[in-house]
Amino acid sequence: MRIGVVLYLLGWFLLFFSAALLVPAVVALWYGEAVWVYLLSAGISAGAGTLLVLFLSPEQEIGYREGFAVVVFSWLAAGVFGALPYVFTGALDFVDALFEAVSGFTTTGSTVFSVLEHLPRSLHFWRAFTQWLGGMGIIVLSLAILPLLGIGGMQLYQAEMPGPTKDKLAPRIQDTARILWGVYVFFTLLEVLLLMAGGMNFYEALCHSFTTLATGGFSTRTASVAGFDSVYLDYVITFFMFLAGVNFTLHYRFLKGEFSAYFRSEEFRFYCLVGFLGVFICLVFNFVSGTYLSLKENLRYSLFQVWSIMTTTGYGTADFDLWHPICRLLLLVLMFFGGMAGSTGGGIKQVRLLIFFKFIRLQFRKLIHPRAVEIIRYDDLKVPNDVTQAILGFIALYALVFLAASLLVTAQGIDILTATSAVAATLNNIGPGLEGVGPTKNFGWMPDFSKLVLTFCMLAGRLELYTVAILLTPGYWKGVRPPRFRFGLRK
Amino acid sequence: MRIGVVLYLLGWFLLFFSAALLVPAVVALWYGEAVWVYLLSAGISAGAGTLLVLFLSPEQEIGYREGFAVVVFSWLAAGVFGALPYVFTGALDFVDALFEAVSGFTTTGSTVFSVLEHLPRSLHFWRAFTQWLGGMGIIVLSLAILPLLGIGGMQLYQAEMPGPTKDKLAPRIQDTARILWGVYVFFTLLEVLLLMAGGMNFYEALCHSFTTLATGGFSTRTASVAGFDSVYLDYVITFFMFLAGVNFTLHYRFLKGEFSAYFRSEEFRFYCLVGFLGVFICLVFNFVSGTYLSLKENLRYSLFQVWSIMTTTGYGTADFDLWHPICRLLLLVLMFFGGMAGSTGGGIKQVRLLIFFKFIRLQFRKLIHPRAVEIIRYDDLKVPNDVTQAILGFIALYALVFLAASLLVTAQGIDILTATSAVAATLNNIGPGLEGVGPTKNFGWMPDFSKLVLTFCMLAGRLELYTVAILLTPGYWKGVRPPRFRFGLRK
Repeated sequence: MRIGVVLYLLGWFLLFFSAALLVPAVVALWYGEAVWVYLLSAGISAGAGTLLVLFLSPEQEIGYREGFAVVVFSWLAAGVFGALPYVFTGALDFVDALFEAVSGFTTTGSTVFSVLEHLPRSLHFWRAFTQWLGGMGIIVLSLAILPLLGIGGMQLYQAEMPGPTKDKLAPRIQDTARILWGVYVFFTLLEVLLLMAGGMNFYEALCHSFTTLATGGFSTRTASVAGFDSVYLDYVITFFMFLAGVNFTLHYRFLKGEFSAYFRSEEFRFYCLVGFLGVFICLVFNFVSGTYLSLKENLRYSLFQVWSIMTTTGYGTADFDLWHPICRLLLLVLMFFGGMAGSTGGGIKQVRLLIFFKFIRLQFRKLIHPRAVEIIRYDDLKVPNDVTQAILGFIALYALVFLAASLLVTAQGIDILTATSAVAATLNNIGPGLEGVGPTKNFGWMPDFSKLVLTFCMLAGRLELYTVAILLTPGYWKGVRPPRFRFGLRK
Repeated sequence: MRIGVVLYLLGWFLLFFSAALLVPAVVALWYGEAVWVYLLSAGISAGAGTLLVLFLSPEQEIGYREGFAVVVFSWLAAGVFGALPYVFTGALDFVDALFEAVSGFTTTGSTVFSVLEHLPRSLHFWRAFTQWLGGMGIIVLSLAILPLLGIGGMQLYQAEMPGPTKDKLAPRIQDTARILWGVYVFFTLLEVLLLMAGGMNFYEALCHSFTTLATGGFSTRTASVAGFDSVYLDYVITFFMFLAGVNFTLHYRFLKGEFSAYFRSEEFRFYCLVGFLGVFICLVFNFVSGTYLSLKENLRYSLFQVWSIMTTTGYGTADFDLWHPICRLLLLVLMFFGGMAGSTGGGIKQVRLLIFFKFIRLQFRKLIHPRAVEIIRYDDLKVPNDVTQAILGFIALYALVFLAASLLVTAQGIDILTATSAVAATLNNIGPGLEGVGPTKNFGWMPDFSKLVLTFCMLAGRLELYTVAILLTPGYWKGVRPPRFRFGLRK
């Protein structure tokens, strides 16, 4: 581990990050709100970044191990420095601000605010903008970086990276990013237009488009999307949540004219199957239990909530915590399915669960035909054994982190369903959970220790566990080299 | 699949089974209770058995596939015919009686009775005796049959079978059974003596010894073991629950003079570690939350409940559903750990979870040292890759069945925690769960459909899932041959 080069790159990250903080400053200027909040935050980030870039020597190689640290430190730094505006406006103390900022950059959407309407508009914008930036980061991470690091079976996607292949790493990541960000920006603008067509003002349309495409789920209203109470807006947002949960490479290929791209993807078909099966069950039991008596109403809310939860967006149009027990449990389970790999959605990811189910089927086949050689196929290709193992290992670790974090939260005296659903909602980057953190509630009442555990869950879930977990193993830090400084100190 | 020979063997099973029904008849005679109940039940079983044995031709080979069916049908038949005494005494209707009988033979211990004291003594005896017989069955199944069928990685234990090896299958199973049943009977008698030394009468001591060694958990008192309120009895029972959760091969080796047998077993060390870690956490949080203020009281109840739940016995001396949330969640998690493989305990089994944790650690090592060849070791031997895969497949299927059954139970409008803990309590063969099926409650109030789902869970869990699940796949029944009859019908 060459910690020096990691911190050097972190310095550059902070310099870019401080530029991002200037955007809400412009919004504050426009609405006549306190501009200094963002300028000071930007200044602090830029200062820290400059120190790192100036004093640390970049003349070190960056390898496989450093990659993990750069990813984790960047997201963590975004959380820490992104929390500053919440603190400076006096809206939150530091732990709450950190929770809210990490919830933003990890596109989770869990909030500590019990009322949103009284916040300055520029701060609303910052909340939404953090999610949009987080979504950008995730697209690059999941489609350009993770496949190369081979985490949790994501080497499956190595071939999917658009742009010129066989090139050097850095330019290849840049090309992938440029292409996919184009799609991301395009969809965001499209949603802004469609939301405005439904009567939303530009400012709120922008904020909601930011948080939809990022599968973030922060809203400008305390009641979330329910605050607008418009059938049209509900369906537009449902559609874009659905899109945000799809692998962005598929969007790119579709927009380039390969219209069959979606349905030729086995993961996409599975994603649709799981989602619409969930919608179907909710429709039936919302009818049976008398929650919604008209099909129109039932369809509107069931479609919205199932896709909102499964894509890990987390918007609310209905208090699903009052739904039939099977719907509540189903939503809790769907939280773990998440989006497709390469989408902005969180969770375990559809492809991993697809392989997981195929693996179970394989065990049956082996017992019935002990001598036959059986393999797992995905997208008509043979899945190598080590990819299957990596995926199973990922799911196993996921279960373990889920249980460990749930125990830590219950240790604070929080009841089981609140605790487990809070962990599910943060680890899968969704937003609301059940009971004490249900869709009409928030996370503000929780003890600080629980908030920190959940903040860790958001980061760990967003960065596909292993990136974070590896940094916590002693083996990783073995042979760490002290940073080299640019001036002095060297003999 | 040769269904004829399966039914023929089932016939013999029913003949033996009818003999077992004569034992409670003797008890009824002794206490002057209705003897006809058991004689009629025995007669019906014997009649059905005789018909199958007389009319079906045994002249067919028994193979791998038939093995699954014999195991599942035997347990199912024990449940169905074992339910008759409950029906004939008028104590329960058939669905409830089936639930209670399957809960007995699977050594689960969940009950539909809200009050136990008014039942005839012979019926109490039958309840306890079904668990003891079920425990006997499990010892043979887990140490002699499953390793040969290679289910869920149990081929690990192929070498552990005591008795002469390299012999024919049937005599080898018989030898293993004889040796281990000796240990089982010895421990049962030992517990009877120790319980009587604590003031329990012979009849209750026998019933409780039956259900302790089987990790069953049926009690003669509504309040379970708490009904005796004796520190001495609590500790004696805790000790025997602990023993019942240990691989019986280890007991056999220990009793033969190999005193290091226990601690040389990696699974035994893991079993102790998990259990005592659980006890420690309960001790801390029962103290912090003020549930028990004296250490003596705290130790007594924490030790008892953790080992009762983890070994899947399910006795109660305290209403742990009122404990601190972390203790409740912890007990729910420990339900899945269960006993060691080769014990009478249910659950996933300690060895599988040990390999599961080692597998997760392996994934870390692979990420840190991508080029190194890493393997999993257990008891100082290399674990073959297909065994690891089978174990992971087992755990995956376990999770799937748990979720599917939980959804089915919530579909009846039962709340999430009651439903999931009821499934956990039955699938892992424990007894009580949380909330609506907590240690002071029972399963009697549930709708029939939920009872049938939970009855299925008890069977599926007890028979290591695959045995049951394979019978539900279409591939298994392909090419099934109709039964051949001994007389007539043949040309």
